[in-house]
Amino acid sequence: MHLSGHSPAARAELQQQSAEKATAGLDGERCGCGGIEKEVALEAAPDSLLRDEIDEASGIRGRFERRIREAQNAICAAVEAEDGEGRFREDAWCRPGGGGGVSRVMQNGRVWEKAGVGVSVVYGTMPPEAYRAARGAAAVKSPSGNGASAGGVPFFAAGISSVMHPHNPFAPTMHFNYRYFETEDWNGIPGQWWFGGGTDITPAYVNEADMRHFHGTYKAVCDRHDPEYYARFKAWADEYFFCKHREQRRGLGGIFFDDLNHKPRDEIMAFSSDALGAVEESYLPLVRAHKGDAYTEQNKRWQAMRRGLYVEYNLVYDRGTTFGLKTAGRIESILMSLPLHARWEYCPDVEPGSPEAELVDACAHPRTWA
Amino acid sequence: MHLSGHSPAARAELQQQSAEKATAGLDGERCGCGGIEKEVALEAAPDSLLRDEIDEASGIRGRFERRIREAQNAICAAVEAEDGEGRFREDAWCRPGGGGGVSRVMQNGRVWEKAGVGVSVVYGTMPPEAYRAARGAAAVKSPSGNGASAGGVPFFAAGISSVMHPHNPFAPTMHFNYRYFETEDWNGIPGQWWFGGGTDITPAYVNEADMRHFHGTYKAVCDRHDPEYYARFKAWADEYFFCKHREQRRGLGGIFFDDLNHKPRDEIMAFSSDALGAVEESYLPLVRAHKGDAYTEQNKRWQAMRRGLYVEYNLVYDRGTTFGLKTAGRIESILMSLPLHARWEYCPDVEPGSPEAELVDACAHPRTWA
Repeated sequence: MHLSGHSPAARAELQQQSAEKATAGLDGERCGCGGIEKEVALEAAPDSLLRDEIDEASGIRGRFERRIREAQNAICAAVEAEDGEGRFREDAWCRPGGGGGVSRVMQNGRVWEKAGVGVSVVYGTMPPEAYRAARGAAAVKSPSGNGASAGGVPFFAAGISSVMHPHNPFAPTMHFNYRYFETEDWNGIPGQWWFGGGTDITPAYVNEADMRHFHGTYKAVCDRHDPEYYARFKAWADEYFFCKHREQRRGLGGIFFDDLNHKPRDEIMAFSSDALGAVEESYLPLVRAHKGDAYTEQNKRWQAMRRGLYVEYNLVYDRGTTFGLKTAGRIESILMSLPLHARWEYCPDVEPGSPEAELVDACAHPRTWA
Repeated sequence: MHLSGHSPAARAELQQQSAEKATAGLDGERCGCGGIEKEVALEAAPDSLLRDEIDEASGIRGRFERRIREAQNAICAAVEAEDGEGRFREDAWCRPGGGGGVSRVMQNGRVWEKAGVGVSVVYGTMPPEAYRAARGAAAVKSPSGNGASAGGVPFFAAGISSVMHPHNPFAPTMHFNYRYFETEDWNGIPGQWWFGGGTDITPAYVNEADMRHFHGTYKAVCDRHDPEYYARFKAWADEYFFCKHREQRRGLGGIFFDDLNHKPRDEIMAFSSDALGAVEESYLPLVRAHKGDAYTEQNKRWQAMRRGLYVEYNLVYDRGTTFGLKTAGRIESILMSLPLHARWEYCPDVEPGSPEAELVDACAHPRTWA
């Protein structure tokens, strides 16, 4: 691992601290579950989070990490410029066995109440339960019927993930996540690689022009790579972001894909990179247009209730969050997607024909926007 | 089913409405999952939620239902008296196949921002996945290896459940749940019965006298039934209400038990009934003492953050909530436990030695209070 500013002695010290944390008190249980070792804070973000003794910078792992680090820089700079006041705080950490992350969070900005952009690189063995959460429907069965006893599945994962919640109830929440996964040979199952990702939009009120712009941006990106991508990944987002117990999606969708390995790796990497590169263009104009909109207390109350549903979705269904909770990742980074405020009213009245009812209808019955 | 005020024609109409709801649009998926049929609202709470063609009022099901209905009345009356202003709204519903519920919620009272007390009676077949959630560690394995194809496990469940969130940050949140479960013979596994339940307290600040009173009340109840109960059920609550990804409990515990069937049914019923009867005595004096305490904005902010952790616990770990979400119960009743407000700050500062740090420490390292 490249730890800028850390001598071998300092690195040994970090590893020692981590080992102590991992075996002290309640932590012990977390590390005994086949998950990931406890992280150690770093004073500054390292140049690379990869294991230098294993991973070559010119390989796919190195290229993917550089791309997400670069995107994190570009997106945070653009968001700070749009906010005009808020600044991202940065927290970097590593794990003694390799891997780590860089989380950047802006809280109580002028435009955003909370915005987080995190990258992470994880090496580990995952319990088959988490493997299923990460791979979803495509998960393989544990050949022994009880994979935990077989030591779990060795994996590598690198990804960038973000959620941004503006103050103004007419400026939408946006989420994106782009990730690259590899599993190693395990119990006779050959190693696998795949890409996953997507960007989705969660407004509290429907604005058709906004949605045409947002979806249109991703349709254009998709069309440059494969004419079938947009229809397929738009429908996948509508399916994936469905909050079953509410019988509606959390928002108005976007694109989502997972387990993508049907083309040469470089081609999917190029698509993933382009979709990640479209975040500023797809989202920031919507915030620029609405960050100064007039609003009422009722609008804010509705926004807080929609954010309650967002919390439900993330904690109950979201694959990244549930994977993170199961593998005992850095908890503040996993949960930085949660809004600053959320609200749960019992049996809220939504007046038929109101803008609030229109949003619920659009979340229950996905429309074609592009 | 006894539907006071509903003629056979009205009941047929309700069943028709329900069948339509269950097959319309997205609902269809919920009812095809081996879960529970969609509920139908009733104009008034029926005298009994049992199936009169199957269940005798003098049997254990009838006696347990009468006990929880009576407790709901008594607790809601006491809470309204303490609040002085807020009133519980009542919603009753039934399912065409039998069962139903009565939810009572007070929102924006003078003392409580949200307080819910619900009873429900459910007949159904549960997917083995939900059976595992309901039975926890004691779950039986599906004999065929894929229970869904065998039609799921027929069950009966009756219970009372409550969460109360006061406004004042020095007045604690309280939760209780007492339930009786039966499964029928299924795939060669004989039918089972068991009781579960508990009451636990979640303050935002530690008050030792309050905790001695609260735990002492349940210790006295337990001691009247079995000298081993309190120590066992206090430890069980400390284990059960643990929020693993936060490495702390959601609050300061109480008692919890499940799968209880080691004594004659009437003896466990008597214990469960007494514990349920102790809710007013254990909790209301704490609210009375603190409902008028002076507080700062910082106290309210901390309370909202602890309520964020409460939301995390309920959506990720709570057996009743996850069971309800999986079996598609009445969603507003399942989620009435969520607070009106919750807050998530990234990496909040908790000053060592502060009252906030003391609370975290007490949630991380359970103490003996009685």
